[in-house]
Amino acid sequence: MRLALLGGTGDIGEGLALRWAYDTNHEILIGSRDPEKARTKAEEYETELSSRGVDRDVKGFENAMAADRADVIVLSVPAYHAADTVEAVADRLDDGDVLVTPATGMRRDDDGFHYHRPNAGSVTELVADAAPEDVAVVGAFHNLAAGRLANLDAELGVDTLLVGEDEDALDTVELLAESIEGLRALRAGGLANAPEIEALTPLLVNVGQHTEGLHDLGVRFQ
Amino acid sequence: MRLALLGGTGDIGEGLALRWAYDTNHEILIGSRDPEKARTKAEEYETELSSRGVDRDVKGFENAMAADRADVIVLSVPAYHAADTVEAVADRLDDGDVLVTPATGMRRDDDGFHYHRPNAGSVTELVADAAPEDVAVVGAFHNLAAGRLANLDAELGVDTLLVGEDEDALDTVELLAESIEGLRALRAGGLANAPEIEALTPLLVNVGQHTEGLHDLGVRFQ
Repeated sequence: MRLALLGGTGDIGEGLALRWAYDTNHEILIGSRDPEKARTKAEEYETELSSRGVDRDVKGFENAMAADRADVIVLSVPAYHAADTVEAVADRLDDGDVLVTPATGMRRDDDGFHYHRPNAGSVTELVADAAPEDVAVVGAFHNLAAGRLANLDAELGVDTLLVGEDEDALDTVELLAESIEGLRALRAGGLANAPEIEALTPLLVNVGQHTEGLHDLGVRFQ
Repeated sequence: MRLALLGGTGDIGEGLALRWAYDTNHEILIGSRDPEKARTKAEEYETELSSRGVDRDVKGFENAMAADRADVIVLSVPAYHAADTVEAVADRLDDGDVLVTPATGMRRDDDGFHYHRPNAGSVTELVADAAPEDVAVVGAFHNLAAGRLANLDAELGVDTLLVGEDEDALDTVELLAESIEGLRALRAGGLANAPEIEALTPLLVNVGQHTEGLHDLGVRFQ
C-alpha cells in the first residue's frame, strides 16, 4: 500500500512515517507544500532508518503529488491548515482513497491547554466537510505524543481511537494503526464522536505538565 | 477521617463508599435527600462488606446532616443536581472541609454520548461557583466506571485525574483516591482544566459501546 503523509515534515508526520517505514513494508511518501523540504526530510528519515539497519526508500513530494500517488493520505498538518490542505489536493484524490485526519484544535492559556472546538464540531468533521464526497474520511492518531512516536527506541503501549462512517476505510486504518508495534486501535463510532477524542489531546498535555516523570503521554483504555 | 457521599445511594456513590469502606478505615457516611433511603442503602453496603468478611459500620443520613459530620464531602449526584445539592448543604460546610465533585454533563444522540458543557465551563467549575468561599473544591473521580467501582471483585488498574486550586485539599483527595486499591491519582492542574477531564467520560462510554470485550472502561495514562 502507498501511504502519503501530507505535512509529513512535521512532528506527528515524522513519527508516523518512521514507524510505518520501520514496522511495515508499505511505501512511504512524504508530502510538503515545499517539495524540496519534503525531499530533505525524506532523506533524514532514510538516514535514521538506515542507522537502525533498515534500508528504506522514502520519497518526498509536493503535497498534491504525494496525495495523487497514495491510497491512504494522512493529513499530518496543524488544525488550522487541515481544510486548506484538503482543498489543495482534492482533485488528486481518487474514489476509494482514504483520508486520515489526526489534527486537533488547541489553545493555551494560563491554566494549561484547552480544546478549541471548530464550528464544524471537530477538526475531524471539518476535514470530512472539505473532502470530496467519494473519499472516505477517518479520524485517527489524535492522541499520540509526537516525540514518543518519532523515537523508535520508545515503547508505545498505547491506544489510538478511530472514528468514521465507512467500514472499509475504518478497517484499512485499523490495520495500518495496528501494524505499528505497541499501538492498539479502538473504534469510537461515527465522525460526530470526534470532539471528545480531540479534547483528550490537550488533557494529555496538562497531565504531563503536572506529573513528574510522565511526559509524552499516551492513553490506554482498560 | 469522615467521608460523606452525598447522593451516596447512586452508582458512583455506591462504588466509592464500598471501596473506601473495604480498603480504608475512614468513617463512611451515606447521604441522600431521603434519609430513609440513605439508611437502607447504608445497610445494603454493610451486608455486602460483611459477606466479604469486613464488618463495617456505614451510616445513612439526609444530605445536609451527612455533610455536617464529614471532613470530605463527595457530591456523587447527577450533574443537574450538583449546584442544588451544594446550596442545600452549604451552611453545614466548615472552613477546611473539602468538597469533591465527580459529576460530568452528558447528552446522548444517535451517534453516541457527548459532553454537555455547562455555561460555567464544566460541572466542576459550576460546583466551585456554588460552594462557600472557605470550602476547597476538588474535581476527581470523573472517569471511573461506576459498575466496576462497585464490584469489589473487579480490579481497577486505572487513573483518576485531580483538578483544584487548593494544594492541601488536592493532597487530601490524592491520598483518599490512592487508598483505593488499583487507583492512581494524577494532577491535571487548576479547575479551569476540568472540561477536558469531564469530556473523557462520554468518550469512555463510546469506546466501550464499539469494542467487543471492553466495557466499564477506565483509562490509564502512560
